[in-house]
Amino acid sequence: MESVAARERARFRAGVRVPTADLAPGYVQANLVAVPRDLAFDFMLFAQRNPKPCPLLDVTDPGSAATSLAPGADLRTDLPAYRVWRDGEVVAEPDGVTAYWRDDLVTFLIGCSFTFDRALAEAGVPVRHAEQGRNIPMFRTARPCRQAGVFSGPLVVSMRPVPPSLVPAAVQVTSRYPAVHGSPVHVGGPAALGIADLSRPDYGDPVTAAPDDVPVFWACGVTPQAVLAAARPPFAITHAPGHMLITDARDHDYATG
Amino acid sequence: MESVAARERARFRAGVRVPTADLAPGYVQANLVAVPRDLAFDFMLFAQRNPKPCPLLDVTDPGSAATSLAPGADLRTDLPAYRVWRDGEVVAEPDGVTAYWRDDLVTFLIGCSFTFDRALAEAGVPVRHAEQGRNIPMFRTARPCRQAGVFSGPLVVSMRPVPPSLVPAAVQVTSRYPAVHGSPVHVGGPAALGIADLSRPDYGDPVTAAPDDVPVFWACGVTPQAVLAAARPPFAITHAPGHMLITDARDHDYATG
Repeated sequence: MESVAARERARFRAGVRVPTADLAPGYVQANLVAVPRDLAFDFMLFAQRNPKPCPLLDVTDPGSAATSLAPGADLRTDLPAYRVWRDGEVVAEPDGVTAYWRDDLVTFLIGCSFTFDRALAEAGVPVRHAEQGRNIPMFRTARPCRQAGVFSGPLVVSMRPVPPSLVPAAVQVTSRYPAVHGSPVHVGGPAALGIADLSRPDYGDPVTAAPDDVPVFWACGVTPQAVLAAARPPFAITHAPGHMLITDARDHDYATG
Repeated sequence: MESVAARERARFRAGVRVPTADLAPGYVQANLVAVPRDLAFDFMLFAQRNPKPCPLLDVTDPGSAATSLAPGADLRTDLPAYRVWRDGEVVAEPDGVTAYWRDDLVTFLIGCSFTFDRALAEAGVPVRHAEQGRNIPMFRTARPCRQAGVFSGPLVVSMRPVPPSLVPAAVQVTSRYPAVHGSPVHVGGPAALGIADLSRPDYGDPVTAAPDDVPVFWACGVTPQAVLAAARPPFAITHAPGHMLITDARDHDYATG
């Protein structure tokens, strides 16, 4: 029987274009970055040196659009929305990238914090972006990543507003998922990350917080997109922020302890 | 003050050539593999696809002999013994590789199970190779690694004989160190791994087991050496099996839970 994840991928392949945060609960979601083979070592080294924002779940052979994380999926069509990059600029946001594909592209699938949203909800931590049917808010920070070859740039974080009494649970629950960003990088005080205004995210949508909520920040798999904008490689393809690959892997496969 | 690890590295730099298993307890040890830049992506992909034998602790910039894991160390001189490889054959086993170094070498430092030997001993699990002052026995298995580009070959395992009542503790303790091979891959039954004779290891020394001991097998960072022998790349440098880099990182830095 086809999995819930495979059914969602089939909808996206048919052209449905929606953020994936609250879809197929329990299935691991992934960020996508595809770069030409001659940049692949530098990008993989970047991921190795920045494991909080860039935990690698799978890396394809050059030219392959298949992944063991989602048997039968086509990485060129099965996400709801993509970005095509030339010289560090987004030149298109299509719902499929078959027309842009190249035989030398190496695709990196990077863990996504949506993977632990269900675990947060089960622990009683409200997941406001999902409750409000919005894309998660994401922010470029003033914190630099470690450089690798041509790639450098700022850490990007996702933000979830958490009631004060539930901040410890949010830390504990997400610490159990190191392969999908793990524990938060920052709790409270957005200014210290160089974030001026929580109502104006750099990617995704603003969410409405309760008055006492504390902003909690996790390293985000959109970081490579800020890095592409900074490093300006000739060509790359990514997912559109919040519009992820839904894999057949299960959340609990990536939980520790 | 200079660390115990730095003092050991200075001895090796001066020419001392000994296995490192029982040296500098508490400091993380690492396997070393250096390949030319044009093979580095394939090798890194191999490590990504085979995380049990090849957990990457650090990867250098091309040509660099420095690592953040051991500030001040020179990766060309600070291990007790090296192997120089041409076309898949070991052509020299020097105590330093400065004369062989190339500006395009990318060095991979891979976790080593010696890192958890102290935790095993503290849990009451005898570490026979250390007790007997021998190098640990290592075996090529019949189990293939996942291929990546030009690299493929068999999984190599290290073996520790463990008393039956302590096998659960050995599994539990080492499970807490996923970055240095983690839990065993196999307990008992060497024939199922394709190992014919435990007294004839492919690398290292045989150890004397107690009559009831069960052989317990962990994925081993010597796996890349079996892969070099199979893939026959034009040039590579590795450590000599059992003669590791002793880093300044501490065992507990790599423990989870």
